[in-house]
Amino acid sequence: MPQARRYAILGTGALGGFYGARLCRAGCDVHFLLHSDFEHVRQHGLVVDSKDGDFVLPRVQAYRDVRDMPRCDVVAVALKATNNHLLPSLLPPVLAEGGVVLLMQNGLGGEEEAARAAPGHVVVAGLCFLCSNKVGPGHICHSDYGAVRFAQYSADGAKAGVSDSMRAIGHDFAAAGIEVDLLDDLLLARWQKLVWNVPMSGLSVVLDTDTGALMADPHTRALVEDIMHEVVAGARTCGRHIDQSFVQKMIDMTVAMKPYRASLKVDFDSRLPMEVEAIYGNPLRAAQQAGARMPLVETLYRQLKFLDARN
Amino acid sequence: MPQARRYAILGTGALGGFYGARLCRAGCDVHFLLHSDFEHVRQHGLVVDSKDGDFVLPRVQAYRDVRDMPRCDVVAVALKATNNHLLPSLLPPVLAEGGVVLLMQNGLGGEEEAARAAPGHVVVAGLCFLCSNKVGPGHICHSDYGAVRFAQYSADGAKAGVSDSMRAIGHDFAAAGIEVDLLDDLLLARWQKLVWNVPMSGLSVVLDTDTGALMADPHTRALVEDIMHEVVAGARTCGRHIDQSFVQKMIDMTVAMKPYRASLKVDFDSRLPMEVEAIYGNPLRAAQQAGARMPLVETLYRQLKFLDARN
Repeated sequence: MPQARRYAILGTGALGGFYGARLCRAGCDVHFLLHSDFEHVRQHGLVVDSKDGDFVLPRVQAYRDVRDMPRCDVVAVALKATNNHLLPSLLPPVLAEGGVVLLMQNGLGGEEEAARAAPGHVVVAGLCFLCSNKVGPGHICHSDYGAVRFAQYSADGAKAGVSDSMRAIGHDFAAAGIEVDLLDDLLLARWQKLVWNVPMSGLSVVLDTDTGALMADPHTRALVEDIMHEVVAGARTCGRHIDQSFVQKMIDMTVAMKPYRASLKVDFDSRLPMEVEAIYGNPLRAAQQAGARMPLVETLYRQLKFLDARN
Repeated sequence: MPQARRYAILGTGALGGFYGARLCRAGCDVHFLLHSDFEHVRQHGLVVDSKDGDFVLPRVQAYRDVRDMPRCDVVAVALKATNNHLLPSLLPPVLAEGGVVLLMQNGLGGEEEAARAAPGHVVVAGLCFLCSNKVGPGHICHSDYGAVRFAQYSADGAKAGVSDSMRAIGHDFAAAGIEVDLLDDLLLARWQKLVWNVPMSGLSVVLDTDTGALMADPHTRALVEDIMHEVVAGARTCGRHIDQSFVQKMIDMTVAMKPYRASLKVDFDSRLPMEVEAIYGNPLRAAQQAGARMPLVETLYRQLKFLDARN
C-alpha cells in the first residue's frame, strides 16, 4: 500500500460514518458510499456529536454507486452483515490493485464472505467497540468507547499474525485519535467479542430492554453469565482458549458502563433485519462442526429468528 | 362424604366460574367466593358462553368473605397459585369435618401448600384441560376442551391410588357433563401437564404470541420440542416415566387446536402476577433436588422472572 492511503467507506451509518469522519478529519482521502442519506450528505456533509468533541464536515466525497467511486487502497465494509450478499457487486469495482478489505462487522463469518467476493485481496477485520447511533440523516451521535481491534483473516482459520496491512491501517486510525489494538488471532478476537455480544444483544431484543436492566435483575444477570460461559466453551471447541475470568471482566465492564441499547436492538426497533445469522447462527454452526452444542445460545437464536421473521 | 355434596368455589374466574356454574346447573349446592365481581354476580348471577351450549344462572350463592360461607364438603381452590399464601386463612373456615380440598391449579407444589393450610383434610388435585376466559364481571367464555383429571395428594409423593373422595367428586363432575379421568399418580399427572405448559406458556409470554404462531414457525417449534424433552427428562429424575412419544402427541394436539392464548399470557397481558414459581420454579427445584438440571426451562424461568418483576 502507498504511504497516503485512500479509503472507501461502504455504509455511512452510525459506525462507518463515525470512523470515516474521524479519518477524514485527520487528513485521509475518504470516499463515502451512501444509500438513503446520499442527497442530504452531499449537500450538508456529516455531523458528529461525540464524547470526544463534536465536529462537522460540511463537504465530504459522497457517492450512491460504487461504479462512480475511485479505486481505493482500503475498502471498509460498514454495512450490516445482513447485506453481505451485496459484497460481490460492491467490492470489485472499488478495490485498487493490492487493496485491502477492512470488514467492520459483528459476529462470525463475514470475512469468509468478503474473501469470496474479493479473491486475491487481503481481508482485515476491524472489531469495533463503539457506542454510536445515527440520530438523523448524516448525523451521528457517539456516546461511548470507540476502540478498534484489527486482525487479519486467513482462509484456514489459523492465526495470521500481525501483517503490514494491519499496521498501516492501524497507523491511520491511531492518527485519527482512535484507540487501536493489533491482534495476531482473528478467531480468538471474534469469539471474545461474542462472549459479550451474544447474551447482551439477544436478551435486549427478546426482553425489550437494555444492558443496565439486564445487569440489575439477578435472574437475567445469572442468565447472561451462563450464556457467556457457554460461548467460552464453544470457543474452546473451536480451538480458542478464553480464560473463565474474562466472563467476570465482561460483567464488571457492563455494570460500569452507561445503560446501552445494543445495535441488534436498535435494528429490531427500527424494523430492520437483525444480524441473527452472523451473531448466533454462524457461531452455533462452527461449534456444532467442532462437535459441541450451545443450548442456551440456540434458545436465543430460535427466539430471535421468530421475532425477526415476524418483524 | 354425604351423598349430596356441598361445594365451595374459592375464586370465581374463568376456571372456577366455569366448573362451579356447571356443577350448579347440574343441581349441586354450590357457594361462590368472589372478590372484585362480588356485587355484580350477587345481582346478576353468572353468564357462561360455551361451545357446549350457552347458559345463564341468574341467581347464585355469592360471598365475599369465607366467614359468611357454610362449611362445605368439597372446597375447590380455583385461585391463581400466586395467591396460595391466602390458603391458611381461606380454607379452615369453609371446610366441613371430613371435607376435601380440591386444588384446581397449574404447576407443581400447590397441593403441599393446601395440605399445610388444612391439616387433617384430604387434598385432591383437579388438573384442568380447559380453554376459557373471563370476558366481563361474572361472564365466562368457554372456547374449547374442559376435561378434568383427578388425582390424590400424598405427603410422601408416592402414588396414592384412586380414592373414594376422588370417585365421589368425579361423579359430580361427570353428572355436570364434564369429561373426567381418575388417576392413581398425581406426580405423573403434574409432570405430564408441565410438558405442554412449560414451553407453551413461557414462550407465549416472552415472544408475545400464541400457540398457533409458535407451532407455525420452524425455529420455535423445534425449541418447544426441545423444552418438552427436557421436562420429560426432569420427570424421569423425579421417578416418573413419560414416554418420548408423549412429546409428539402434545405437538400434534397443539397443531390441531385453535390458536390459544395461554393463561400465563392472559395474566401477563392483564398485568397480574404470573404463576412463574408454580410452573417453573418448583419443577426446577424438584429436578435439582433429584440431581438434574433443566437449562432451557431455567432460561425461560429467568426470562419470565425479569418480565414479571418489570410488569
